[in-house]
Amino acid sequence: MSERNIRVEPIDRHAVEDQEVEIVERKGIGHPDTICDGVAEAVSEALAQEYIDRVGEVLHFNTDETQLVAGEAAPAFGGGEVVDPIYLLIVGRATKHYDGQTIPAETIALRAAREYLESEIPQLNVGEDIVVDVKLGEGSGDLQEVFGEDEVSVPMANDTSFGVGHAPLTETEQIVLEAESRLNGEFADENPYLGPDVKLMGKREGDTIDVTVAAAMIDEHIADLDEYIDAVDAVEAFVEDVATEHTDREVNVHVNTADDYEEGSIYLTVTGTSAEQGDDGSVGRGNRANGLITPNRSMSMEATSGKNPVNHIGKIYNLLSTEIAEEVVAEVDGIRDLRVRLLSQIGRPIDQPHVADVHVVTDDGVTLEDVESDIENIVDRELANVTDITRQVIDGELTTY
Amino acid sequence: MSERNIRVEPIDRHAVEDQEVEIVERKGIGHPDTICDGVAEAVSEALAQEYIDRVGEVLHFNTDETQLVAGEAAPAFGGGEVVDPIYLLIVGRATKHYDGQTIPAETIALRAAREYLESEIPQLNVGEDIVVDVKLGEGSGDLQEVFGEDEVSVPMANDTSFGVGHAPLTETEQIVLEAESRLNGEFADENPYLGPDVKLMGKREGDTIDVTVAAAMIDEHIADLDEYIDAVDAVEAFVEDVATEHTDREVNVHVNTADDYEEGSIYLTVTGTSAEQGDDGSVGRGNRANGLITPNRSMSMEATSGKNPVNHIGKIYNLLSTEIAEEVVAEVDGIRDLRVRLLSQIGRPIDQPHVADVHVVTDDGVTLEDVESDIENIVDRELANVTDITRQVIDGELTTY
Amino acid sequence: MSERNIRVEPIDRHAVEDQEVEIVERKGIGHPDTICDGVAEAVSEALAQEYIDRVGEVLHFNTDETQLVAGEAAPAFGGGEVVDPIYLLIVGRATKHYDGQTIPAETIALRAAREYLESEIPQLNVGEDIVVDVKLGEGSGDLQEVFGEDEVSVPMANDTSFGVGHAPLTETEQIVLEAESRLNGEFADENPYLGPDVKLMGKREGDTIDVTVAAAMIDEHIADLDEYIDAVDAVEAFVEDVATEHTDREVNVHVNTADDYEEGSIYLTVTGTSAEQGDDGSVGRGNRANGLITPNRSMSMEATSGKNPVNHIGKIYNLLSTEIAEEVVAEVDGIRDLRVRLLSQIGRPIDQPHVADVHVVTDDGVTLEDVESDIENIVDRELANVTDITRQVIDGELTTY
Amino acid sequence: MSERNIRVEPIDRHAVEDQEVEIVERKGIGHPDTICDGVAEAVSEALAQEYIDRVGEVLHFNTDETQLVAGEAAPAFGGGEVVDPIYLLIVGRATKHYDGQTIPAETIALRAAREYLESEIPQLNVGEDIVVDVKLGEGSGDLQEVFGEDEVSVPMANDTSFGVGHAPLTETEQIVLEAESRLNGEFADENPYLGPDVKLMGKREGDTIDVTVAAAMIDEHIADLDEYIDAVDAVEAFVEDVATEHTDREVNVHVNTADDYEEGSIYLTVTGTSAEQGDDGSVGRGNRANGLITPNRSMSMEATSGKNPVNHIGKIYNLLSTEIAEEVVAEVDGIRDLRVRLLSQIGRPIDQPHVADVHVVTDDGVTLEDVESDIENIVDRELANVTDITRQVIDGELTTY
Repeated sequence: MSERNIRVEPIDRHAVEDQEVEIVERKGIGHPDTICDGVAEAVSEALAQEYIDRVGEVLHFNTDETQLVAGEAAPAFGGGEVVDPIYLLIVGRATKHYDGQTIPAETIALRAAREYLESEIPQLNVGEDIVVDVKLGEGSGDLQEVFGEDEVSVPMANDTSFGVGHAPLTETEQIVLEAESRLNGEFADENPYLGPDVKLMGKREGDTIDVTVAAAMIDEHIADLDEYIDAVDAVEAFVEDVATEHTDREVNVHVNTADDYEEGSIYLTVTGTSAEQGDDGSVGRGNRANGLITPNRSMSMEATSGKNPVNHIGKIYNLLSTEIAEEVVAEVDGIRDLRVRLLSQIGRPIDQPHVADVHVVTDDGVTLEDVESDIENIVDRELANVTDITRQVIDGELTTY
Repeated sequence: MSERNIRVEPIDRHAVEDQEVEIVERKGIGHPDTICDGVAEAVSEALAQEYIDRVGEVLHFNTDETQLVAGEAAPAFGGGEVVDPIYLLIVGRATKHYDGQTIPAETIALRAAREYLESEIPQLNVGEDIVVDVKLGEGSGDLQEVFGEDEVSVPMANDTSFGVGHAPLTETEQIVLEAESRLNGEFADENPYLGPDVKLMGKREGDTIDVTVAAAMIDEHIADLDEYIDAVDAVEAFVEDVATEHTDREVNVHVNTADDYEEGSIYLTVTGTSAEQGDDGSVGRGNRANGLITPNRSMSMEATSGKNPVNHIGKIYNLLSTEIAEEVVAEVDGIRDLRVRLLSQIGRPIDQPHVADVHVVTDDGVTLEDVESDIENIVDRELANVTDITRQVIDGELTTY
Repeated sequence: MSERNIRVEPIDRHAVEDQEVEIVERKGIGHPDTICDGVAEAVSEALAQEYIDRVGEVLHFNTDETQLVAGEAAPAFGGGEVVDPIYLLIVGRATKHYDGQTIPAETIALRAAREYLESEIPQLNVGEDIVVDVKLGEGSGDLQEVFGEDEVSVPMANDTSFGVGHAPLTETEQIVLEAESRLNGEFADENPYLGPDVKLMGKREGDTIDVTVAAAMIDEHIADLDEYIDAVDAVEAFVEDVATEHTDREVNVHVNTADDYEEGSIYLTVTGTSAEQGDDGSVGRGNRANGLITPNRSMSMEATSGKNPVNHIGKIYNLLSTEIAEEVVAEVDGIRDLRVRLLSQIGRPIDQPHVADVHVVTDDGVTLEDVESDIENIVDRELANVTDITRQVIDGELTTY
Repeated sequence: MSERNIRVEPIDRHAVEDQEVEIVERKGIGHPDTICDGVAEAVSEALAQEYIDRVGEVLHFNTDETQLVAGEAAPAFGGGEVVDPIYLLIVGRATKHYDGQTIPAETIALRAAREYLESEIPQLNVGEDIVVDVKLGEGSGDLQEVFGEDEVSVPMANDTSFGVGHAPLTETEQIVLEAESRLNGEFADENPYLGPDVKLMGKREGDTIDVTVAAAMIDEHIADLDEYIDAVDAVEAFVEDVATEHTDREVNVHVNTADDYEEGSIYLTVTGTSAEQGDDGSVGRGNRANGLITPNRSMSMEATSGKNPVNHIGKIYNLLSTEIAEEVVAEVDGIRDLRVRLLSQIGRPIDQPHVADVHVVTDDGVTLEDVESDIENIVDRELANVTDITRQVIDGELTTY
């Protein structure tokens, strides 16, 4: 057992699954805020990778401030058009000069953003429907980074910050998370009328779960109102199916409830995202690192997307605490709810948090003592391997939004 | 008693004051994120007021997306200079044409931003040290607003959203909140070397409170390292004094702990904000509506600053729930901790939330039954007067950051 | 004969061909100023065409203000990279709403710019090496345009302006014009190391012509200094060949004279344009409507590129006067030099210029009387067909740069 | 007599004063193009002066690319407002790091622009009616400048370029130049309704001079149409008076001829410049270095405003040739028209032009021989003192627009 300051305690509330009211939200991949998160994280991965390729280690950068200014669109059955382009400004800091080399940070950022957008929101014609601009200041030259190809040392925390993770997901959380993922996956693959801007809000009161879906339909693939209504129905049925895989509770799914067919007011878009018409977005305003917004759980305000995965302690601790929580639940039986919090202390190695506290709700018949040492061991092991988080982020294996 | 869906329940945790570890943060008025919040809210107030003055009611707008791109500065004892200006982009939507009138939304926004910056961060020479730009799209013309000079009707919720408020503040919260306020008030008035970018993190473990302060010093008023050290000491002493007014616990104050005098690395700035050198910012990334970041309490992800105070339900409910919590604690004895949550339902009048639930920790010897009906009455009354929130926001009487 | 106010007079100077010193310049297609001209004109053509396609006539627009902000590049033998992207801002006015339709003027402009850049400067990766942004204000709604699909009426002059054209080209002019064209054509096709940013200055003193060429070489196709020197030599030989096709005078060609091989200072680029490194550009700063800068001849300051070809009298008269001059020289024998000037009067039909004056230098043995009436007839005929110019511009048959 | 290559020759045309048709234009100080020229030159002066103050010599910079994007305004008798701000982008290159010092080039540029705008177009509220932004790339570090406080050496020409100057001004030129100057001077001082955007076009046919004036009136100072008409009449009378001081020819003045009182279409503005509503502008598109656009004379395409006055040969030679022409006419009797052209050769000292040719029309009874040597001496003397031009530009004693 290490000297790490790890505490395992009972949590002083019910498991979220057992609370009376639960609210869960997820902004899908094409939501303006998530677009910003996604671009910021793609830029961050690209910069980290390029630094490693070029100078053998990750240099100082931080690109967690992408701003999206909505455009204007004129959707129409069968295909409309964007009339005023979206404007996307990538903001941040990056090292551009190092050891005699010049690193084209802004060009790398633009490329990463374009590739990300073309991959995730293919209806959006980059350079036409959306202008991507960039303002990356020069990072402070005196900041040394230590995450390289060969040697990996544990960096010092650059800030007093904390991260928080939870497991297991409640049924409502699972439904919201998976429904978005599969809508934007298998469903959209078969039904190209569904755009990536799918926003889900799950509300559970007792044993009734309401899932409200706002799904941006793509006009090119919808010929008329009848087809639109069919599309709405198909989304509803699909989400119901996903839901019943995760719960025996009563589930009601509501899709595009703000529609008013008589007034011709429906959620039809040209590009599949509301960013085309009036919805601005920015990094860190949407999903937390686990992909969800969960008012019933403590959340970190920290924007994780776009931050440097080597030395940004808020990013690392949010991802690591989530991973720890998932590991514990996977390996230890008898846990009904669990929250992991990691608090850094500026200047200390990041594998030595100021405190790592784990709050647990055990299943009936299980005591904290039954699981305490198993949990401590997992926390200790995961902290020892903290730099794995950095590697996984750079390799795109961990998402932050 | 109304038909409102109000629930009063025991909270299933200890009062935050009684929890073992507590973390509280406040980003001061000059922090890059708070600058964005402040500008966004100033723009919002100015637009709302102008709409009332010009057309008699508040029209559709939303300006909650200000983005700050940091500059570069060369501080020096006795006075340095900004070498690359900060760039501030005001983003949002606003109605520019209404009933034959043209409303100069962008000009109004620029003026409000300039006046706010000149007032709150006077060292920052607007138009020289900071470029303020604006991109306000045209708001959807078909959105009707109903908050006017004469008649005030209760709008329908435009979204499914929720707000959360807490009271009373813990000792640590009070210390952090008031220390920032008084540092930027009386202290800075007497000691012009202190810049408005003061960031405080309070951490309580049991009965020991650590307050870490990052205070941007203004170079013009600091002649040399000795004066800088004196300034740091003065801030420390001042915060200690503030703290002892609010607690009998042990308090340790740490100011500018990242300084390294030998290496000449100190927190010296030209303008009193880290935005001058490498720290970007945006709306909704910092303080919640009550001015604090409180990981021990549930927080809304919603950015309240800059949002339309007439119809943006997230903004209204966050402010209202905080006000309700404060009212309850002020009027009802025996409450140790209280959380108010308001959940809207799209399309319902906002004075009829889907659910208003109040979770209470009572003092020893007090039962929920003792306070339940008093609380319900206050919640009911406050909901009935929900439009007061809008009025107070427009008049600048409520802050959101 | 019409009532048009046409004057044919002797010119009160020598033919330019016979002057002692002559200077001629052409900024090639990849020069920053010409890039702006080309983009502005491409945008103009696209808008005019779209207006015709959508509403049957050309609506009010003007896009003659593209601004290019240079980037930074790190060229290297075998292939370097752009390190800070070029920024290109398309500026102007365009009608976005007409008769219930919304015309996506900015999206059209972005598409036209991208297609133009990809076609003419293929090394420049649009959206990566260059950020293209757009600010098109709404054109005044009350301006009626009259150039449609079916009916073509002659518009009124919108300004007091004038255009000037010359013919025939001198030998030096022919050499400079054709050398650039063929360098960027057949030569570059066979020798991909030559970039489109080729700038030529011809200077003739008596019977000696010096042609100075600045030719941006593309690093990807040049392995080392030897290859670079070969490339320079090849350009020189090619231009000499072109020159001797047009003159019997002595011709000296100088390529990349600012190179300093010992210091390693050569004109090597990543993308084939100096816009990648420090050379800004804008519309109307380079070539006149005939493709040349000719200090020996009167020139219009008017920027023709990007202007509306239906009603912008400066654009139309510059193109028309050039066409008239060329027609006259093609059809009438005995003309050594000729200048056509068309002066509009605001409010008059553009086929009725305030004055059309033609100044002529005849060949020896030819008198003005010999050619006067032929010239008048051609001028009259061309003015009668003034709207052909508009059609040719929209169809991309006339260049303006 | 020096070794300079100076040629004095007869000009092969009539004096412009004696030509049948003459056109002269001046865009007043508040015209969008002139605003850009003025800002660019103000920025240039400020940078040059700061470099001298900080490092003792002028470093590399070039700021000749300011771009103005027009706003939108709603003028109204008694006072309207700007509804969409003008956007002004200062573009160029400047040395930001030199010999361990950091020079805040962008901050200097923003300050110079603001001070210039506040001084020349006081109705324009900087930061509210106009957003001023800046993009100054880093200048090449290897360019050495040589114009310092103490030693002044003559720099080498950085380009093959030429400048051209004329004297004396014709009557029409004098009228146009002085009318604008006095309208924006004494007249505007007494009649605050006249805005700085005054555009004059003089056309002389034989002995009849037509002066067409477009004068932006400021709505705040004009209560109704009657006052507007009075204002137009007053401008007309004033220009007539100015004209008669300079000519005995017949003069007709036309002010705001595009007005249509019945349709309520008049030239009323909020700020006194058409930049507020639809008229974009940029550097080098308007007046030449002598303040005029003179199609009857050879003109340089070169934009002089904003260019580095130490080493930019096009700027220096345009200003110097104008000064030479004026000096010659002031000191030598018998000259009716004179054109000075200076052609540089890259790499040669700028006081040794490749050729300085002076073309002269003498008065009746005066021969070229009578004046030739006097002219040569003046040219020689002025070239010897070429660096005076630089000094005068930096001190703001020479205008370029």
